[in-house]
Amino acid sequence: MRIEIELKQEIDNSYQIYIEPLKKLHIDSKVAIITNTTVKKLHIDYLLQRLEAVEVKVIELEDGERYKNIQSILSILDNLFENHFNRSSKIIAFGGGVVGDMSGFAAAIFQRGIEFIQIPTTLLSQVDASVGGKTGINSKYGKNLIGAFHQPKAVYIDSHFLQTLPRREFNAGVAEMIKMAVTFDAEFFNWLESVDLTDKKSVQDAVASSVRIKASVVAKDEKEMGIRAALNYGHTFGHVVEREGNFEKFLHGEAVSIGIIMANRLSVALGKLTHKEESRIRTLLERYSLPTLYHIDDIEKFYEAFFLDKKSGDNSITFILASNIGSVEIVKDIEKSTVIDALKSYNALGAK
Amino acid sequence: MRIEIELKQEIDNSYQIYIEPLKKLHIDSKVAIITNTTVKKLHIDYLLQRLEAVEVKVIELEDGERYKNIQSILSILDNLFENHFNRSSKIIAFGGGVVGDMSGFAAAIFQRGIEFIQIPTTLLSQVDASVGGKTGINSKYGKNLIGAFHQPKAVYIDSHFLQTLPRREFNAGVAEMIKMAVTFDAEFFNWLESVDLTDKKSVQDAVASSVRIKASVVAKDEKEMGIRAALNYGHTFGHVVEREGNFEKFLHGEAVSIGIIMANRLSVALGKLTHKEESRIRTLLERYSLPTLYHIDDIEKFYEAFFLDKKSGDNSITFILASNIGSVEIVKDIEKSTVIDALKSYNALGAK
Repeated sequence: MRIEIELKQEIDNSYQIYIEPLKKLHIDSKVAIITNTTVKKLHIDYLLQRLEAVEVKVIELEDGERYKNIQSILSILDNLFENHFNRSSKIIAFGGGVVGDMSGFAAAIFQRGIEFIQIPTTLLSQVDASVGGKTGINSKYGKNLIGAFHQPKAVYIDSHFLQTLPRREFNAGVAEMIKMAVTFDAEFFNWLESVDLTDKKSVQDAVASSVRIKASVVAKDEKEMGIRAALNYGHTFGHVVEREGNFEKFLHGEAVSIGIIMANRLSVALGKLTHKEESRIRTLLERYSLPTLYHIDDIEKFYEAFFLDKKSGDNSITFILASNIGSVEIVKDIEKSTVIDALKSYNALGAK
Repeated sequence: MRIEIELKQEIDNSYQIYIEPLKKLHIDSKVAIITNTTVKKLHIDYLLQRLEAVEVKVIELEDGERYKNIQSILSILDNLFENHFNRSSKIIAFGGGVVGDMSGFAAAIFQRGIEFIQIPTTLLSQVDASVGGKTGINSKYGKNLIGAFHQPKAVYIDSHFLQTLPRREFNAGVAEMIKMAVTFDAEFFNWLESVDLTDKKSVQDAVASSVRIKASVVAKDEKEMGIRAALNYGHTFGHVVEREGNFEKFLHGEAVSIGIIMANRLSVALGKLTHKEESRIRTLLERYSLPTLYHIDDIEKFYEAFFLDKKSGDNSITFILASNIGSVEIVKDIEKSTVIDALKSYNALGAK
């Protein structure tokens, strides 16, 4: 005998992203602000001055990707239990991508899920991590391998926090914006070429455009079955560069910058991108001191590393390729020799 | 400036529950069967003979509620990573409620969620844990405090496994069936009074009725915001009994049986249940050797314990009360003295 469990539901995970100076934030429950030592020192007063809640508890994590692990999650959960947080309590993720990923994951599994709010403080997390609902931690087997999809209830993006951000980290965030522009929005790319992201206004506008692009992609593909993969432009190559540098030599955005140039070599070889477009993208990245050259010592090994990195099941590599500026193609089954040749021609860029 | 992230989606978490002898099971990916030492010894061959998959890995947990913790989850995840499981791999939960809760939670957080299939082997997990999508583990702060909602892809209920189930555990499962009948289905209750659950056919029919009831409740309220709370009939009282017995003296279903009788005393006091109905329920429970009497040493302390147990935020206790056989009421704000008097009259049952 067979019984059908009907769980077709209209789920509304919609939320608002506010891109403006933080105003009063009223929360009618207990709140845990999860942050790290650096952000706490610089900005906790700014947040507390604007926050009203039934009770506020600040949970402080060590600063750094190496603390993005299960031990940190368990210590967050212990803290919540000890302070009698319950199903109607809320979490505020206050920091960069690492804090956001961990706070979101803790919120996802505390008593089977409570609400969380994001207040991202780095440019990268403002344009990237704040949209999409991916939460998680690293394990010894790799990055982001344990986690959940858990959408925030609201995101507050305030460029105030960027004032204290080191230039290098700011630029790494710009790499992700350029990525969005190249793959989805030619007009945004043209605009980026025409401005300098030095004043608050233009940064805020650029963040807004990036968030809008990512939001529209995520809305179409919340759980990354299709088009959302296009957000990984520059990442297939970039991840290998990151790993070769032991995740220390390059910031994520810097590795993506290098990865974009590599991917573009392949696009040009396949006739999807003109030399002129390739050059415009590289010029824009370099304007923000982003690295574009890198010497691949062992091209064969570099190629093999694509297979280590894969979460998906099958054995072909998916390449995300810019197809002129402003659009993107997801291409499988590119011949190995074509990829190897593109990597060789990439190496040659540095030899010039 | 404000950007709306539109994530209104028609989510289809529907699945089939098969209540029949297990036939061939074809799975076109790698599969991890998560089970415990006892079930593995008794039934793994039965399952393996019927299972076809790309690759099968058996992950064996220790048997018992005290292993339902984060360490077991981490060891499952390590095992999956070491064996190169990926996003398209699947998990089969093969055992009772503890195995089901843990396997489901591991499936929920492995690479942000993979599919899992339930093959429950105890009567309790067949009627209860296999429907609803609640997964999770215990922490030192309490039961099921860490977890996620993650629906299975399919559930296979085969009464074959019940042959090896100790009588006491079988009866504890019957308590949950009686709970479903009292709260939602008078006809099912009448039928239960008319049969003896000794032959396979009647057990299978009783499981099917229970599953149908739970399924219809869960479909209305997947994340336990309203009517689903009614499934906790007997549980508010039962949990305190369980805790007083250190979770060792009584099986969960036995504590629920006692809790039902306590809740019914309150129903009778409030005029929601007749003496005759109360007596029919008790008679049915006792037919399956389920405990109905229990001496509350300190009634005041017993009452206070309701507040410790609560996951919800506010400070009132919600009572789930049978309102005649076949329907249920969720009642808040019952005067403390009324509850205390009902507990006194419960104690008096044992003194007779």
